[in-house]
Amino acid sequence: MNKLNNTLLCDFYELTMANGYYELGKGQEIAYFDVFYRSVPDGGGFAIAAGLEQVIEYIKELHFTDEDIEFLKEKNMFSEGFLEYLRTFRFTGDIFAVPEGTPIFPGEPFMIVRAPSIEAQFIETFVLLSLNHQSLIATKANRVVRAADGRAVAEFGSRRAQGADGAVLGARAAYIGGCAATACTISDRDYAIPSTGTMAHSWVQMFDNEYDAFVSYCKIYPNNATLLVDTYDVLKSGVPNAIRAFKEVLLPKGITKCGIRLDSGDITYLSKKARKMLDEAGLYDCKIVVSNSLDENIIRDIIQQGARIDSFGVGERLITAKSHPVFGGVYKLVAKEEGDTVVPKIKISENPEKITTPHFKKVYRIFDKETGRAIADQLCVYDEVIDESQPLELFDPIETWKRKTVENYVAKELLVPIFLNGECVYESPRISEIREYCLSQVTTLWDEVTRFENPHRYYVDLSEKLWAIKHELLMNRGKRV
Amino acid sequence: MNKLNNTLLCDFYELTMANGYYELGKGQEIAYFDVFYRSVPDGGGFAIAAGLEQVIEYIKELHFTDEDIEFLKEKNMFSEGFLEYLRTFRFTGDIFAVPEGTPIFPGEPFMIVRAPSIEAQFIETFVLLSLNHQSLIATKANRVVRAADGRAVAEFGSRRAQGADGAVLGARAAYIGGCAATACTISDRDYAIPSTGTMAHSWVQMFDNEYDAFVSYCKIYPNNATLLVDTYDVLKSGVPNAIRAFKEVLLPKGITKCGIRLDSGDITYLSKKARKMLDEAGLYDCKIVVSNSLDENIIRDIIQQGARIDSFGVGERLITAKSHPVFGGVYKLVAKEEGDTVVPKIKISENPEKITTPHFKKVYRIFDKETGRAIADQLCVYDEVIDESQPLELFDPIETWKRKTVENYVAKELLVPIFLNGECVYESPRISEIREYCLSQVTTLWDEVTRFENPHRYYVDLSEKLWAIKHELLMNRGKRV
Repeated sequence: MNKLNNTLLCDFYELTMANGYYELGKGQEIAYFDVFYRSVPDGGGFAIAAGLEQVIEYIKELHFTDEDIEFLKEKNMFSEGFLEYLRTFRFTGDIFAVPEGTPIFPGEPFMIVRAPSIEAQFIETFVLLSLNHQSLIATKANRVVRAADGRAVAEFGSRRAQGADGAVLGARAAYIGGCAATACTISDRDYAIPSTGTMAHSWVQMFDNEYDAFVSYCKIYPNNATLLVDTYDVLKSGVPNAIRAFKEVLLPKGITKCGIRLDSGDITYLSKKARKMLDEAGLYDCKIVVSNSLDENIIRDIIQQGARIDSFGVGERLITAKSHPVFGGVYKLVAKEEGDTVVPKIKISENPEKITTPHFKKVYRIFDKETGRAIADQLCVYDEVIDESQPLELFDPIETWKRKTVENYVAKELLVPIFLNGECVYESPRISEIREYCLSQVTTLWDEVTRFENPHRYYVDLSEKLWAIKHELLMNRGKRV
Repeated sequence: MNKLNNTLLCDFYELTMANGYYELGKGQEIAYFDVFYRSVPDGGGFAIAAGLEQVIEYIKELHFTDEDIEFLKEKNMFSEGFLEYLRTFRFTGDIFAVPEGTPIFPGEPFMIVRAPSIEAQFIETFVLLSLNHQSLIATKANRVVRAADGRAVAEFGSRRAQGADGAVLGARAAYIGGCAATACTISDRDYAIPSTGTMAHSWVQMFDNEYDAFVSYCKIYPNNATLLVDTYDVLKSGVPNAIRAFKEVLLPKGITKCGIRLDSGDITYLSKKARKMLDEAGLYDCKIVVSNSLDENIIRDIIQQGARIDSFGVGERLITAKSHPVFGGVYKLVAKEEGDTVVPKIKISENPEKITTPHFKKVYRIFDKETGRAIADQLCVYDEVIDESQPLELFDPIETWKRKTVENYVAKELLVPIFLNGECVYESPRISEIREYCLSQVTTLWDEVTRFENPHRYYVDLSEKLWAIKHELLMNRGKRV
């Protein structure tokens, strides 16, 4: 697989701050950063975490080459000592994260970094880039796949992706979110995402007529003949020519599995008409694939209108998450170590939604033992342990009078160790396992949370202890008293 | 610079079609493909072409490794002969394109590929991916830069980009579109885009108080001190502490150049108040930088409201082109060679905007000699030449009775040779030259075309000869008579 050293894929301020910490002798102070996001794209009820495997690769590869250091030296902003320090720079800290494919909710850390301040700060840009990108696409793909209601969805968007990684890792994330396949061949080679594809309009145009194009294709790929029927006229030309080709080439071989693809026009109308024509020709096993600026809303709409579609190819609106192309994950300092003490830190803001929840945390997901459904997540201070044998009181961290006590529950810690003292202690599951895990975890959410429009807000609560610490810091504008 | 072989970054159907052409003996038939787009993002009047340099690198690197061929063999879809053919596969054709930074309009080719059908078809995915991505971001950046009306714009979006290339090449495209700098360090190392940056909120939180954080920063970077003033309270804490730090550390050294950055709250209000406080402290040279989910609309709004801002940092809404994150460039077969004859081809569609303009073409941009302004573009058949000494009649290709004759004009061919017979014959200008070229070319457009809202549609016309060929093909559903 192609490998890149992305060490300098960092915001320049990571370097100015790093040099500053180094010069001030603060570089070895232990800092804690949370990665969390503030709102679910597309007004949904949850997101899907993805991109961890690429963070792991990045951390393992992290080092400055001589060329990098020479480049930085020419900026005339960094001390000699700091540049020397960079020669042996590695990540030596701890990282905890939720496994890829986990449903995540606003305000809760889905990654925590504990490391010497220079290291912890330095990795910010790439960590966010990777988690933001893939979580965005996995979340979108999961919406599209749920809209397709059991029909397969293939990711078709490489040509409209925002750069090569947008295509390749976007296909990976789409698969995690539930897509069945991708058109992107290299994602198959490098990430084991099944690749698929048949023909473009240009295939049809390369022949003297559509019928010849179809017959030729069926002869070469009798077991994989999905014919694109909208180059000239779907119902007058495309479907009749496809039927003729199937009957003349495939049926004599005893092959009944085949397909047509619609890529323009009124999909609902055309798919119904095409289905009727195919059935009348006895081609009951011929599948209808559609592609044409689809997204979850259009898919729900055309299914509801009775479109006769067997599978979907979804392109630009999935690979760019077009309706909401930003996943707003942030990386915020939440604590520092002073001697043996973990000191919580807060960022206060004129925008209330930008206020952070301080401290080194644990995240528990509380499942109802009877139904298996997720009830709420609770953020705790790192040294708290939930005792499942005791009733657990949950309360809203803003409207604190809203309280609820749960019993007969399982409290599952969401964050698992990924790096400890700079060593990777985590092995990523196979991509197909991540996909299965994602699909199974989404089924633990109540329908009210998975609803597309105006979903119920899932509870992300604070423990009494954590709430009290946050409240104290807020009241004293960042200082504990 | 890191190099990747992106040969398998292709839609799988490029391979099934390639194998098909090979098996049918059609692989060496010469095909012509146009790259064009159908509508300007954000309802604008023009787009900026970018991404050519990465297409050139891709074409030069294009080859299948043994590993690639082994991977394809395992698909059990490709013939032995075809797999052998891939071992020596290279691009041997011609590519013509507009230089990066050129304003481009819907419906006109900004790249033309002429090559044996397998090769011409195969490169589709990566060519589109690169041109679509960078043209999208260059176009968006140009909008943002024009909105900033002379104030510098820095690209700050790496952490929200759609993958690593989204960040790195996005920064490149943003610079082409007119940004002055990027926060992305690796884009500086690899593409000579000036990088910039100072501090995050975490810097401030790492100190016992904001004042200490600011003083420390000013001491280390006296010539580059832009202090982030919104960690606790902009007007009560951030700006007063910044003023104190500047006065105590910088002024005694005779340094008056410094800056503050606002990253939250009401930017217009806060910038006015902060400007007043800075001026009252005698810090007239202190610049105010703002960043906080900005885009061209917000920038125009806050400038119009009298915000006192010297420069902008623009993040997620630029690097993802959030309001319109897809550039819909397409790759369509427009002609084939049969013997010595170039035979035009058309794709007809149920959606009229998806009908293609056939044939191997030239694109002329017609400039008024007196004003230097662009009047219209005219698409011609490849063998036509515009004689500037003669009056030129332009007409609307749909409403053909709308006609206009121009005189005293310059007709400039937009497409230049990039590859001829597989050899690269083009040297990309330096990135700073591309940026200057872009900014200069935008000034050749009438204000009516560059307007943000509801711009005038720039004329992209067909020559009489080309119009007649398209009309004939349309009337005969793809066949010439």
